[in-house]
Amino acid sequence: MNAYQPRTDDMQFVLSRVLNAPAQLQALPAFAEVDPDLMQQVLAEAGKFVGEVIAPLNRDGDEIGAQWQGGAVTMPPGFKAAYQSFWQSGWPALAASSEDGGQGLPTVLEAMLYEMLSAANHGWTMAPGLLHGAYECIKHHASDELKAQYLEKVATGEWLATMCLTEPHAGSDLGLARTKAVPMPDGTYAVSGTKIFISGGEHDLTDNIVHLVLARLPDAPPGPKGLSLFLVPKFYPDGSRSRVHCDRIEEKMGLHGSPTCVMRFDEAVSSIVGEPGKGLGAMFVMMNAARLHVALQGIGLLDAAWQKADAYAQERRQMRAPGKGKSAGEADLIGEHPAMRRILDTQRAWVDAGRVLAYRTALELDLIKHSADAEQQAAAQRWCALVTPVMKSVFTHQAFHGGSDCLQVFGGHGYVREWGIEQIVRDARVAMIYEGTNEIQAIDLLVRKVMADGGQSMNALLDTLAADLPQAAKASTSAQARIQTLRAVTAQIVKAAPQDAALPFRVADDYLRAVALVLMDWAWLRIETGVDADTPDANTRWLAPAKALRQWVLPEFQMRTFIIVQQCTAAGA
Amino acid sequence: MNAYQPRTDDMQFVLSRVLNAPAQLQALPAFAEVDPDLMQQVLAEAGKFVGEVIAPLNRDGDEIGAQWQGGAVTMPPGFKAAYQSFWQSGWPALAASSEDGGQGLPTVLEAMLYEMLSAANHGWTMAPGLLHGAYECIKHHASDELKAQYLEKVATGEWLATMCLTEPHAGSDLGLARTKAVPMPDGTYAVSGTKIFISGGEHDLTDNIVHLVLARLPDAPPGPKGLSLFLVPKFYPDGSRSRVHCDRIEEKMGLHGSPTCVMRFDEAVSSIVGEPGKGLGAMFVMMNAARLHVALQGIGLLDAAWQKADAYAQERRQMRAPGKGKSAGEADLIGEHPAMRRILDTQRAWVDAGRVLAYRTALELDLIKHSADAEQQAAAQRWCALVTPVMKSVFTHQAFHGGSDCLQVFGGHGYVREWGIEQIVRDARVAMIYEGTNEIQAIDLLVRKVMADGGQSMNALLDTLAADLPQAAKASTSAQARIQTLRAVTAQIVKAAPQDAALPFRVADDYLRAVALVLMDWAWLRIETGVDADTPDANTRWLAPAKALRQWVLPEFQMRTFIIVQQCTAAGA
Repeated sequence: MNAYQPRTDDMQFVLSRVLNAPAQLQALPAFAEVDPDLMQQVLAEAGKFVGEVIAPLNRDGDEIGAQWQGGAVTMPPGFKAAYQSFWQSGWPALAASSEDGGQGLPTVLEAMLYEMLSAANHGWTMAPGLLHGAYECIKHHASDELKAQYLEKVATGEWLATMCLTEPHAGSDLGLARTKAVPMPDGTYAVSGTKIFISGGEHDLTDNIVHLVLARLPDAPPGPKGLSLFLVPKFYPDGSRSRVHCDRIEEKMGLHGSPTCVMRFDEAVSSIVGEPGKGLGAMFVMMNAARLHVALQGIGLLDAAWQKADAYAQERRQMRAPGKGKSAGEADLIGEHPAMRRILDTQRAWVDAGRVLAYRTALELDLIKHSADAEQQAAAQRWCALVTPVMKSVFTHQAFHGGSDCLQVFGGHGYVREWGIEQIVRDARVAMIYEGTNEIQAIDLLVRKVMADGGQSMNALLDTLAADLPQAAKASTSAQARIQTLRAVTAQIVKAAPQDAALPFRVADDYLRAVALVLMDWAWLRIETGVDADTPDANTRWLAPAKALRQWVLPEFQMRTFIIVQQCTAAGA
Repeated sequence: MNAYQPRTDDMQFVLSRVLNAPAQLQALPAFAEVDPDLMQQVLAEAGKFVGEVIAPLNRDGDEIGAQWQGGAVTMPPGFKAAYQSFWQSGWPALAASSEDGGQGLPTVLEAMLYEMLSAANHGWTMAPGLLHGAYECIKHHASDELKAQYLEKVATGEWLATMCLTEPHAGSDLGLARTKAVPMPDGTYAVSGTKIFISGGEHDLTDNIVHLVLARLPDAPPGPKGLSLFLVPKFYPDGSRSRVHCDRIEEKMGLHGSPTCVMRFDEAVSSIVGEPGKGLGAMFVMMNAARLHVALQGIGLLDAAWQKADAYAQERRQMRAPGKGKSAGEADLIGEHPAMRRILDTQRAWVDAGRVLAYRTALELDLIKHSADAEQQAAAQRWCALVTPVMKSVFTHQAFHGGSDCLQVFGGHGYVREWGIEQIVRDARVAMIYEGTNEIQAIDLLVRKVMADGGQSMNALLDTLAADLPQAAKASTSAQARIQTLRAVTAQIVKAAPQDAALPFRVADDYLRAVALVLMDWAWLRIETGVDADTPDANTRWLAPAKALRQWVLPEFQMRTFIIVQQCTAAGA
């Protein structure tokens, strides 16, 4: 079995040649010092760390896994040392403000780091994966006293953090959460209740763990507006232990390197973060960034699966490939068989387009934060609001289903553990569920965002994409046609919804896929503008995936829009 | 977690109301005595046995699994007792000839039994799953002496059997196999080599195990024509042990209840079965039956996944469903949310159509064996040759991908072991690989069968389907249109292939899916003719899946044929 190796040259290509990111970033005063050399250097260092330190721990993470005993969780071999090295090298704080102990670098570098980490070791990466959200949450909502105690520790990753949202009967619907917070005379709150599916709720990676917990004050109304946010650490600043207990960890399909904890809060002394009743909003301040991270997990895992399948297909021979004459040996390489070629090139089309969309989104997140131009800000907000749920859904979907296609390249060998490909498929499956299920992403996109303004912001996004299509590219005509179809379909859903309230919910998945395919198409037309067709490997590296996209992937667009139109017509619109 | 419960009423409905099977079978002299009551009784008994004895062992099969130690394999708790009860009750011999110790019942009853067994416990079912093929192979190719020693033991299942085909470097391409068979002066052969992925190569279920092994005689030509078939038991008739060793069992993604063995043959004294150089043909005599069994595994596993998801969706509440007024409680049932309804109804559409196609194929297998009418025989041969690879591919695909959709219904709970749904997804994955990968099924269909006679047999099959569409059904018009499109696409591929030899291999998957959708459509139109629309549950039970098929599944047909036509056009055809 071959471990994942970061290919930072491909990532660098997208960053510089496709997105022209360094120039865009340097235009912002916050990143005036961030020159292309610095970015390249950070990326190279990150790749080295991931490849040498994190990737080799992946197999033990799966096979030995996190172990629970008597309320304590022991992480798999090597995880703790790797994490200590990780935070001490400053990686968690890459994009945190320098005033909080961070390095103040662009979000896109953090995005690339997390893509590589997830590809190398999804289980290990879950631990620091939540840090950034917790950091932003504390930074923007906590009192100065809390910040003094926790902000730097969380920003640097010296302490890890959790998000305690889900309860046994409240998953997608957090409004059903029952955990209680009772005010105490000293201004603290006694939090009681059980939270489930808490990634990294307990572990031995760091000296302390900071829990952010959604709970309900005694006088709170039912539903999501009754939820407030509380902070309770494993150990208080005075060194005493809180009444927060890890009762067990889940047995899961995969991701065994990440302990999924049942956490019991037993009148745990907690501090409120932000205002009462504003808990959900405070927790979701970083929702776009968190969903981008999950999309990057999908992209990374799919790349890891592709790497394994590609290596196998270049080594193993079975049967004669069609259209080939007698070649050396008794059989041809698996990678020369059309059905396998199709699988491999198709996954590569998804990975490369995924990078373009994810890195661009990371750039837009920095524009939101740092741009002084109101119009640019608004466009960035729109991009992130509309593109993020699409990416979260399709790239986690592709990591699992396309990962399964990569497994198929191995035949029977793919089903046994030896090659590590089946672990990727098992690990990847969870990303379709957490951080909002993929069905909820689709509803978020269509119902909460597109329909909320009658399709205006979606049309504005499509304007951006259409304007950005390279004039010369032959495929642009069909790309323009798909954009027009998407506009028409959007209008038709908006018109049909009053006749059939359930319709948008029925076709939300199709709509999200249709948007994804338009984005994929755009991304690849942009990639092609950056490719130097004279380089020796331009054909296999770039043109083959581009062709695969057009032959095998984009035709789904017609099917999706047909399904939607059929539903709208039935509703009389 | 709720264990799978056979729903024999649904199966009986397809058998009698949709396929009118009892009358068809009774028209054959071999089954003159097999009246509807007898069939119903056998089915009910089978359902009882599967539900009470086999289903409860599924979880331990996964969690404890088969264990290897020092060359011996211990099966999971309860597996041996269940197997002993199974063969002693006559279940393996259901469709075997009475002269060989069997019960001489129709193949369709065996098919229904294996669907239920696979749904209940895929791992356990692997053990008897290979018996029928071994029985037919020995019956048709072995010498009288071998038959006297092995036929009845294998027919009744008192001894289990294996098929030893794959080697470390020869999987899909068995022609690369290197295992040697050296003739001995006494007329036996010394077989040496290593076979991998041998399901049930070693276990403690039965007193003896009969191995059928592909190997190469010293003077054999390279490639598939140099392979001969040999029989070597674990214990010879005199009680001595053969030189066949289980060196280890694989660690797999799932199917832990079935030991996947590495078998080493160390000059093992063997008998030849059939003629030298005819090994592959003898082994594949039962290929259609074996692939039908794998298709039934897919149908069964998808039904099991659906049952779990359906039960969960009828119990758990999350959020308000659109278009519903205030209802009892704080939230609506998951099953009332359109995205979940779509998943559930769609899987049901696949399961029910799968039954129609699989049971019909089983009926055709009996016509091949027992019909005296040459035309009926030829039509049955055609049906089995064309429909079997389609079923094997699409129902194993759906068990995994649709099973994953069912997992999604559980949200985070689907990813943990507790509910048993993730086990189904892991177990189901292998069926896309074994008995010919799904890509090989597609090539078998398009290249070896459809193109071999320029599309004639496919057109004849389409004639049969077209003639069998109910005139009154509204959807028949679009069904007829799809059949016409499929004819045109077939002709176009035949025309394009000489210009581009790789083209059929590139579009084989699309072609197979297009054929599958035409078959699904036909199956559901047949189902609807059998439904009594006045029964209270006709709407949720039958009309909702039919609607789901037309809304969400059939639109894929256009996409598939578009992809094929695009390729043909590029090739100039």
